[in-house]
Amino acid sequence: MIVAIAGGVGGAKMAQGLALALPPGDLTVIVNTADDMEHLGLHISPDIDTVLYTLGGIANPTAGWGIEGDTTATLDQLRRYGHDAWFWLGDRDFATHIYRTSRLATGASLTDVTGEMARALGIDATILPMTDDPLRTVVGTPDGDLAFQDYFVRRRQQDDVTGIRFDGAEAARLPERVRAAIMTADLIVFCPSNPIVSIGPILAVPGMRETLLAAPATTIAVSPIIGGRALKGPADRMLVTLGHESSALGVARLYAGLVDGFVIDHADADLAGPITDETGMAVATTGAVMGGPDDRRRLATELLTFGQQITIPAQTA
Amino acid sequence: MIVAIAGGVGGAKMAQGLALALPPGDLTVIVNTADDMEHLGLHISPDIDTVLYTLGGIANPTAGWGIEGDTTATLDQLRRYGHDAWFWLGDRDFATHIYRTSRLATGASLTDVTGEMARALGIDATILPMTDDPLRTVVGTPDGDLAFQDYFVRRRQQDDVTGIRFDGAEAARLPERVRAAIMTADLIVFCPSNPIVSIGPILAVPGMRETLLAAPATTIAVSPIIGGRALKGPADRMLVTLGHESSALGVARLYAGLVDGFVIDHADADLAGPITDETGMAVATTGAVMGGPDDRRRLATELLTFGQQITIPAQTA
Repeated sequence: MIVAIAGGVGGAKMAQGLALALPPGDLTVIVNTADDMEHLGLHISPDIDTVLYTLGGIANPTAGWGIEGDTTATLDQLRRYGHDAWFWLGDRDFATHIYRTSRLATGASLTDVTGEMARALGIDATILPMTDDPLRTVVGTPDGDLAFQDYFVRRRQQDDVTGIRFDGAEAARLPERVRAAIMTADLIVFCPSNPIVSIGPILAVPGMRETLLAAPATTIAVSPIIGGRALKGPADRMLVTLGHESSALGVARLYAGLVDGFVIDHADADLAGPITDETGMAVATTGAVMGGPDDRRRLATELLTFGQQITIPAQTA
Repeated sequence: MIVAIAGGVGGAKMAQGLALALPPGDLTVIVNTADDMEHLGLHISPDIDTVLYTLGGIANPTAGWGIEGDTTATLDQLRRYGHDAWFWLGDRDFATHIYRTSRLATGASLTDVTGEMARALGIDATILPMTDDPLRTVVGTPDGDLAFQDYFVRRRQQDDVTGIRFDGAEAARLPERVRAAIMTADLIVFCPSNPIVSIGPILAVPGMRETLLAAPATTIAVSPIIGGRALKGPADRMLVTLGHESSALGVARLYAGLVDGFVIDHADADLAGPITDETGMAVATTGAVMGGPDDRRRLATELLTFGQQITIPAQTA
């Protein structure tokens, strides 16, 4: 059993590679839900949706999020009613949010609903929200605090990020299925997601970090920063404004103590030594930019091999 | 000012005819909301939607309900998630329900939201829900009580109707705007809607019947039964199983005391005498089957003329 810890598009691509590289059913993906929002009365879980659509083979390959070929009749009509459609929602995508919201209203957990949708989409992997409780990323900027999607979508990540807060983190509970998956995993993979706002909130769930530290499995991470730049999204600028280094080394530092092995791109080969020296991680250098499914599977296979090669130090972290 | 009292498709057609026949802004439509339901977590108001779509010029002319040319991407995806899609919902239609539900959740009234959507659709008429409170038709059948849409859509009106109940009727409040529209109207028109489950619940709103009786305007009704048959829907069978006569006369009896004039089709010309004899109503005989907008306008114009010709008896009803 392999556990992938994932945020949005980068996490979904990596999870798809792992699903393709592993026997059916051998993958559990633990997904960030701190970007979730109530919008138009609907519960939207952008990162879960991206993982569902990607593993279900229906993701829009260009955007990375949303459903391929989706139409916008609903959103167009909402615009006619005066709705400020700053958040893009396709017609089939609306079905996801409507289904989830109506199931949650009947008392189902986010874990239940996610499992139902995964089965409906023919997904073999287990997809688990990091928590069933509300834990929301709030982005501090010079203009004040912003809800995550306000920052990310409405304001197009143009604000300098001066702080990150996870509202609800104290009360959020680690689901037993998440704990069990981590504790019984043979390998744990931190996907190349934004370490601050995709992986950060997952680590902020009380008990998550402790469980990861207690887990017997080797843990590896894939750098989402290549050549100092984020492949997608604002991770590079966010690292800098929050006082970190926008580099694979800067990311490795954030994972120091949690991760045994770190995967970087050829472009960052010169950072392999410094990363090992500073953090003690084993480093694998490969082509870490994921193209299509074949490429994702190739990187996943390399991760699995790398994970087997690492000698885990005694559990002293 | 003309007030039309309307249920679903027949009411919407008549309301459109009146809107076309009258100067802009001179029509207020009071609409049945007892068919409303919560479905997929959304507040659906079928009769209000039919009136909105028809007056907005976007109704599906074949079905009478729904939006012309609407697609079903959302519903198809919901089916993929296992949703039993017994209630047809188009993509643009979903926007109506999502918009309404989200506005209601912020504390807006159904009257507010209906007005917003009417303006957005360029409708000059005022469309008013009969009440902003929940008042729901429950249909008694040999198999037990059914929520209205269960009876009407899911079970295709195949059950014998042995009783009708309006849950919530005691607590429902007559909106002041409805009361004022009725009291200041120059003519009140009962549209050719099902007298039991479309007009019936409107009359069940506490104060509605009394307001109609107190209003100075002439009141006329258009028979939804022609040649003993309902033009659409189960009104004919429902009348019979509830102990009434499935005829224009049977409908006139239900409106006796409330209505000054009654409009029947040429096919029922022989009932004109009996209707006047039994109920005291003036009767106009015309082509009461409405085709397209021109035909609706023609009938509306005849109604307006008929309404002016009737000498209202002293308010003794």
